[in-house]
Amino acid sequence: MKFYKILIPALFFGASLFAQNTDSVMIRKIYDEALANGHAYKNLEYLCKKIGPRLSGSVNAQKSVEWTKKLMEDYGFDRVYLQELMVPVWERGAKELAYIIEGKTKIPVPIAALGGSIASPMQGITAPILEVQNFEELRALGEQVVKGKIIFFNRPFDPRLFNTFNAYGGAVDQRGQGAIEAAKLGAVGVIVRSMSSIVDDFPHTGGMRYQEGVTKIPAAAISTKAANLLSQKLKLRKLPAIQFYFKQNCRTLPDAVSYNVIGEIRGSENPEGIITVGGHLDSWDLAEGAHDDGTGVMQSVEVLRIFKKLNIKPKHTIRAVMFMNEENGLRGGLKYAEIAKQNNEKHIAALESDEGGFTPRGFSVENAPQALAHFSKWKPLLAPYRLNELEAGGSGADIGPLRVIPGAVLIGFRPDSQRYFDIHHSSNDVFENVNKRELELGAASMTSLIYMIDQYGTK
Amino acid sequence: MKFYKILIPALFFGASLFAQNTDSVMIRKIYDEALANGHAYKNLEYLCKKIGPRLSGSVNAQKSVEWTKKLMEDYGFDRVYLQELMVPVWERGAKELAYIIEGKTKIPVPIAALGGSIASPMQGITAPILEVQNFEELRALGEQVVKGKIIFFNRPFDPRLFNTFNAYGGAVDQRGQGAIEAAKLGAVGVIVRSMSSIVDDFPHTGGMRYQEGVTKIPAAAISTKAANLLSQKLKLRKLPAIQFYFKQNCRTLPDAVSYNVIGEIRGSENPEGIITVGGHLDSWDLAEGAHDDGTGVMQSVEVLRIFKKLNIKPKHTIRAVMFMNEENGLRGGLKYAEIAKQNNEKHIAALESDEGGFTPRGFSVENAPQALAHFSKWKPLLAPYRLNELEAGGSGADIGPLRVIPGAVLIGFRPDSQRYFDIHHSSNDVFENVNKRELELGAASMTSLIYMIDQYGTK
Repeated sequence: MKFYKILIPALFFGASLFAQNTDSVMIRKIYDEALANGHAYKNLEYLCKKIGPRLSGSVNAQKSVEWTKKLMEDYGFDRVYLQELMVPVWERGAKELAYIIEGKTKIPVPIAALGGSIASPMQGITAPILEVQNFEELRALGEQVVKGKIIFFNRPFDPRLFNTFNAYGGAVDQRGQGAIEAAKLGAVGVIVRSMSSIVDDFPHTGGMRYQEGVTKIPAAAISTKAANLLSQKLKLRKLPAIQFYFKQNCRTLPDAVSYNVIGEIRGSENPEGIITVGGHLDSWDLAEGAHDDGTGVMQSVEVLRIFKKLNIKPKHTIRAVMFMNEENGLRGGLKYAEIAKQNNEKHIAALESDEGGFTPRGFSVENAPQALAHFSKWKPLLAPYRLNELEAGGSGADIGPLRVIPGAVLIGFRPDSQRYFDIHHSSNDVFENVNKRELELGAASMTSLIYMIDQYGTK
Repeated sequence: MKFYKILIPALFFGASLFAQNTDSVMIRKIYDEALANGHAYKNLEYLCKKIGPRLSGSVNAQKSVEWTKKLMEDYGFDRVYLQELMVPVWERGAKELAYIIEGKTKIPVPIAALGGSIASPMQGITAPILEVQNFEELRALGEQVVKGKIIFFNRPFDPRLFNTFNAYGGAVDQRGQGAIEAAKLGAVGVIVRSMSSIVDDFPHTGGMRYQEGVTKIPAAAISTKAANLLSQKLKLRKLPAIQFYFKQNCRTLPDAVSYNVIGEIRGSENPEGIITVGGHLDSWDLAEGAHDDGTGVMQSVEVLRIFKKLNIKPKHTIRAVMFMNEENGLRGGLKYAEIAKQNNEKHIAALESDEGGFTPRGFSVENAPQALAHFSKWKPLLAPYRLNELEAGGSGADIGPLRVIPGAVLIGFRPDSQRYFDIHHSSNDVFENVNKRELELGAASMTSLIYMIDQYGTK
């Protein structure tokens, strides 16, 4: 492109038009391949149905490492390899039990231990339960009231926020930090409203933290429907008429060896310049990790497969990375950036798909206004595929640690967000809830962006 | 707005900014109401679960007329009334039976009679079956080959088309016209690949036509999975090794009385100027008519409810119209336009929602470039809600007959199209497949557009 800049504007315009035409033909081919001959859907079916849940350190996680490695080898990518790392190992154990206790009546309610939580004592915990909406309310109650109680965090998603990730962001402190804040005031357990706007019977698990010096107390998510019921009962009959019982059997084992799985097509002109596209291979244990994040992983493999199938020889090295341990440690993302730094790798850009396999709306570009302006010139090429949203914003948890690499432009794939938290981290995150065309359109849009970045760089 | 045009540009700019601010606040309120206190989802649940399938002329169709009338009366709209019309009455009767016959083996396959089809003879039809992709191929076979056979139309959706309505448009002639073209060459029956890109076991029904002077032969849709199986078998073993059997028990009864259901909020400044928002109340008989078109109907009622709830006094008369008989006759749409013409009604605009209750992408405006340019000025107001697609295009079947009214701008609500034909006209078009937030966002975006049109007209 630079060459043309010395030509007169009219000629430059002509050349630019020609380039846009060639690119639009290539992008059309990319979409045709993804939609008419795509592999992402059947690969996802295998990952979900033949392997299934794959929490870090589990046998299934190891199976998924081996299978995705073999898959990329079978596609004949130039180089397929593993990146060793240590991951935390947490196990749910036997299914949880919970009741609302109202006088002599026990009402069973669906809960799921939060990832990282300790077990309850063998016999479970029975205690009065207190509902709060946030940490301020909790602190206002004070130690005397909270001591010996179970704290019920029940602040729902704000339904008015268009993007459901913002609603999630506004509620998830209860899940992540709730056990710490409650324990500081002497609570004996924590029950958190599931991170979802849908009202149903399925608890949504997810990561939680403890803090050194603060007593560890068990924490679980309760289904939104049961949360509403519990809240209603607490409004009708004050303490101590309502008590809560829960028992969970989870445990943390010593860290285990695991891997990032990486496939590469080597660049033909600037092989040392790396473009990463990825998702995370690990998933929560309650379902199949279909949208979170089987779709992102299989879309990333599909990007390289489409390059190869269409015989696109990239200028830069294109890497599909299946990150391990996004859900409860981010060790894969950290290791990938650490090794990149160590080896002085030159990273041009990284794109992550970890918001589900829904209809693509566009991409968000992290703290790189120049790159965003550069990408925005491609809007006419992306418009036929309704990729209208090219905006400043976050990228992805796994590629985030690449911030240490100067010049690496970090990009998030942005699908429609409306259905994501209906199924996120719950037993409904299964293959059946992924739409074939939506998944394929995501793979095609990711491939198209990577193609354009490979051709024209990030500025 | 017109007043400000005589001011100097700077002042006009300020006033315009002020108007945009007021409007953006109102649109925010509309979304908040739809998302935080919306009624569309629970109303749809009632329509789907308490009433259910409501094919024209059925008892359920009448129940849906009475219920939606009462619903709008209970909301206290200024005027709620029925518009009488005659509708065709077609009944499926007992469930269909079909087999692929391969020697002595009978393989049962799922079919559904097409709406309007005649029954098979009592004992069913057994005949050799011929696969064709289109009418040209059929005609090339000629009368001698086709005579006495069942014709199997098996042209699939083109998966490369981004908007699935275009893929539908490219395949649906087989369903609508197939029986006519096959009968002209002496065929005894027609089996049509279901109008869907998904591969599963559920046949999709839909309207078909006969032609005067051409023998009526029975026609049914076959599930896409069974269509693939049948096609495979036909490739492996040529005629007459493969025969097909089907029996269906449908019938057409005399036309019956039915109704459009109309609710109005009367305009405060120009009550004679009418803005219509609607969907169709009838549905196919195999499921609950959730996305087709319970969502459009309940979104239209929601538009008026939100106006009332937010105390928006529209300048023009806003009408929610529940059209009857879109699926197999369009009598409701025709009657509505006929009466409008008769009464010399002044129609400003009409908006139809009949592409499902999925995440809104925008609106299409039919043959009205001036209106489209006018609406396009509102893009900044709609951008926060990702209504990026404001384009020339079709509107809706029911409002189409309003083309006879000069000046009526016809608009189609455009949600994401990817999932629609997975469930369209099949037994999967049920309430469970509607996402609450997606439905509500649709209602909010429709309300916002109607609000802006009411404020600033169509040019």
